[in-house]
Amino acid sequence: MSELEALFLQTLTSQLRALDQFGTWAKKSDEELLCEKYVKSKEDLKNIPIIADIDEMQIQDIRLIFQSIALAFELKTGVMCSVVMEMSHEGFGRAVVLAEKIVVTNKFFKDAHRYSFRTYDDLVKEGGKMLHSALEIFEQYHLKVG
Amino acid sequence: MSELEALFLQTLTSQLRALDQFGTWAKKSDEELLCEKYVKSKEDLKNIPIIADIDEMQIQDIRLIFQSIALAFELKTGVMCSVVMEMSHEGFGRAVVLAEKIVVTNKFFKDAHRYSFRTYDDLVKEGGKMLHSALEIFEQYHLKVG
Repeated sequence: MSELEALFLQTLTSQLRALDQFGTWAKKSDEELLCEKYVKSKEDLKNIPIIADIDEMQIQDIRLIFQSIALAFELKTGVMCSVVMEMSHEGFGRAVVLAEKIVVTNKFFKDAHRYSFRTYDDLVKEGGKMLHSALEIFEQYHLKVG
Repeated sequence: MSELEALFLQTLTSQLRALDQFGTWAKKSDEELLCEKYVKSKEDLKNIPIIADIDEMQIQDIRLIFQSIALAFELKTGVMCSVVMEMSHEGFGRAVVLAEKIVVTNKFFKDAHRYSFRTYDDLVKEGGKMLHSALEIFEQYHLKVG
């Protein structure tokens, strides 16, 4: 696991655990918890309709992924980040992570209620990839302007 | 009226009129229409509670302001723009206009249900100012990177 992947995992897990007010996840390992939230097999997906409404919980879970990118980015660079996310109740939407005046992450959703990863490894890799790309974009714009 | 102010007015009016499916505003002048939507006197504001829920119509009206900035920016520069807006039902939120990877407009809301201008001139000036600032920010970042 790369450094960025580990950082993403750490920020995602800590934010998830912070929401566990009643300790219901206390006995679960980080991997179990993340799998429950974000990993869906092909078989699982077959049981989720293509067109369906998305609920507030799911929107919150998706938001956490981008907040983790933002937080990891902050830890890495010291630059404050923020997330702006827009989501229709049908699961169409967009999430952006902003650092200063730069859009470092940009993701569109067409069926957010199905947003998931096939395996735990996929989740970790995707997080690392998004974080890497965010740092690259920021450096490209920031270095030349700042 | 400056060129940018006129462009902002034109894009805002045309987008508002496009929503008038049943021609109910057909007899209103542009200024009347914009005043009805966006201008509230101090007296009017006194009758709007500080804390209240915001309805979908109001969110849509606020969104149009930023879409007009985006559209005017596009007409001016040829660069595609988009708006991402996040709004809680209590009127807390944020709107950003993005051009390529640059955040050209950024606005926070604390009581969006009261978002308005005191006079028609204030609306026009504010639109022109936001558009001017958007163009400036984009040039600053874009020139050095592109």
